[in-house]
Amino acid sequence: MERRTLQGIRVLDVTLVYAGPFCGLLLADLGAEVIKIERPGGEVGRFLPPLHKVEIGGPQRENRSGYFMSFNRNKLGLTLNLKHPKGIQIFKELVKISDVVLENYAPGVMKNLGIDYRVLKDVNPKIIMASISGFGQKGPNSQKVSFDIVAQAMGGLMSLTGYPQGPPTKTGTSLGDCVASLYAALGIVASLYHREATGRGQYIDVSQQESIASILEAAVVRYTMEGKVLTRIGSNNPNASPYGCFQCKDGYFIVGVVGEEQWERFCQALGVEEWRQDPRYRTNVDRLDHVFEIQKEIESWAKDYTVEEIIQKLERHRIPCSRIQDITELVHDPHLKERRFFVEVEHPIIGKVILPGFPYKFSETPQAEPKPSPGLGEHNGFILTRYLGKSAEELKSLYAEGVL
Amino acid sequence: MERRTLQGIRVLDVTLVYAGPFCGLLLADLGAEVIKIERPGGEVGRFLPPLHKVEIGGPQRENRSGYFMSFNRNKLGLTLNLKHPKGIQIFKELVKISDVVLENYAPGVMKNLGIDYRVLKDVNPKIIMASISGFGQKGPNSQKVSFDIVAQAMGGLMSLTGYPQGPPTKTGTSLGDCVASLYAALGIVASLYHREATGRGQYIDVSQQESIASILEAAVVRYTMEGKVLTRIGSNNPNASPYGCFQCKDGYFIVGVVGEEQWERFCQALGVEEWRQDPRYRTNVDRLDHVFEIQKEIESWAKDYTVEEIIQKLERHRIPCSRIQDITELVHDPHLKERRFFVEVEHPIIGKVILPGFPYKFSETPQAEPKPSPGLGEHNGFILTRYLGKSAEELKSLYAEGVL
Repeated sequence: MERRTLQGIRVLDVTLVYAGPFCGLLLADLGAEVIKIERPGGEVGRFLPPLHKVEIGGPQRENRSGYFMSFNRNKLGLTLNLKHPKGIQIFKELVKISDVVLENYAPGVMKNLGIDYRVLKDVNPKIIMASISGFGQKGPNSQKVSFDIVAQAMGGLMSLTGYPQGPPTKTGTSLGDCVASLYAALGIVASLYHREATGRGQYIDVSQQESIASILEAAVVRYTMEGKVLTRIGSNNPNASPYGCFQCKDGYFIVGVVGEEQWERFCQALGVEEWRQDPRYRTNVDRLDHVFEIQKEIESWAKDYTVEEIIQKLERHRIPCSRIQDITELVHDPHLKERRFFVEVEHPIIGKVILPGFPYKFSETPQAEPKPSPGLGEHNGFILTRYLGKSAEELKSLYAEGVL
Repeated sequence: MERRTLQGIRVLDVTLVYAGPFCGLLLADLGAEVIKIERPGGEVGRFLPPLHKVEIGGPQRENRSGYFMSFNRNKLGLTLNLKHPKGIQIFKELVKISDVVLENYAPGVMKNLGIDYRVLKDVNPKIIMASISGFGQKGPNSQKVSFDIVAQAMGGLMSLTGYPQGPPTKTGTSLGDCVASLYAALGIVASLYHREATGRGQYIDVSQQESIASILEAAVVRYTMEGKVLTRIGSNNPNASPYGCFQCKDGYFIVGVVGEEQWERFCQALGVEEWRQDPRYRTNVDRLDHVFEIQKEIESWAKDYTVEEIIQKLERHRIPCSRIQDITELVHDPHLKERRFFVEVEHPIIGKVILPGFPYKFSETPQAEPKPSPGLGEHNGFILTRYLGKSAEELKSLYAEGVL
């Protein structure tokens, strides 16, 4: 069997819904052993749609969510009541034999439970702990309750997304969660590398608001350098023009033109050489000043052509362009199929399900066959007996006391 | 001086514009030494706005871009003509003493230059190389020219962003670039960890389309499990309701409600207990089925209140909510100021500029004072004499031959 990228790393994933679980998934997909720790009733993600054979209640209600499966596949499942002293004790025993603790409770919760970093680093000085929260652990807003959309709104991105006449718009995914997850995973793995060199663990405080504010391309520097406040310009790009989404005869297409040489080829491709002579469109900066006029001109030209016809013209001149794929088209995209991007997971209750896989391919450490998300408490016995040496009797009483 | 997280790691950053440079920045901010390698004229990012004292031509035209500064601060600058045999030779000498090569040319370009992974791993078997491209290195679409917007369109995200009656919408940043950068950085650092254990480098192929397709939250599984094709629902959330952006008396506010207990508190906060009795809104699944009706009801309630009043009501009941910050508000956000999120960089031509900094804080390896982006070829002398032992004479002739 091939060695995995993060082979031998054990992660305690004490997280809910998306921001934390997605980070745990990134580490699991890289080959870490990720133990998903949930309260005995199961975390809220277990009850989010899609639910297999939707019914309120019914048997195995907590093991029916495709949402939960998407971000918790490849993990082991442990239930643990962290409000019970014995739950805390077991948690600390696990910290002793683990490399990483990942959590996304509201700031202060881990401290109130008695398992914040100050405590855990005494339990295991090599532990690396990452917390994902809306505004970070410190600062005047740190106690505000937050979801992804708060990060999108307070991080500046919603003010940039949407059309000038329309409302600020949330990106069509929980971006504040996934970008913070990616940063948390990067911080954790960098700290693993750092630990190899120094023997020391550390604590990483990830802010979802800052994660969003760090990916606004040049929006901040446009303001701090020239006082220009970027705002909503539809699908156009504030740094290059023409670059956006345009309506044509039978739908929409997108095209991106960066630099003068591509602008020349774009005009050739469309057969509109006169645009190149137009003083309004001479340089990229000029075109940015007339971005909506260009949009109108392109759409007026495009109304006679289909998406397919326009893409053929543009591709012949090697201009970046494409149609817009909906989710059906995405899942059936022949290119993604050939690259084996989607993976099939077999879940004991839900059955076979297709999920997104790895967006990157490693030459030496390829993606392993993914395992389904764990049933609630599925690996309680395995983890407590194998890793912590508990007996069957002890397990029984831990269940009876409401610890598991 | 404190040790940095990726202390001692050297990265050759042969990248353009945003996707690659942003990945290099992530590694530089973690403490790696990143050498930005550009063609002698400078990469295209050096000419993107904002430009200091905007003028076409003029002295130091290539050292005036705040765009370039945003993603190339903390790097060393080397010019190198990779179409010249001596440029290739110098590149290989650098690969021998480096840990990582990062590139975002179109697939095939590195091979045509004679410096693809097959060649470089013979030069340095421990080298880790990552390529970021629109569709990945292999597969039927790999040769298509691509920019970030292509990834957003072909990765499914544009079909999910925007309003039902409006067009598919690009997120207000080059998300296909930054998410792929984050994956590339994660893959590189995970491979550094893997190399510590095995002594072996590897090659990482990052696809921007797949990077986007991997962050669609539950959109894929909604389709593959229950055949539901998610599409544009404004700022609403396909997994929880009410959760979106709502118009009120003097602007917009956002609110996120997940789960029945929060729904109860939300109705209390607004004083609309009757909604809790409404059979259309009984469970989260019911509310998702009536997401636009709820939006209308909330906006009809909200038209009598200001953003500030509504936020006070919601915060009193600990419901996640906020106003929407534009870029001015973001840069002056007191919370971000207290967390020292923004950093000030002093550039010899541009002067002092405020830029976004680290979105995560490390307890042991804090962010260093950032250095400005390098002038074009600023470190040619330093790198070639100090690292490769060239003489001043050799440097002179390399310039004369057009290698630097």
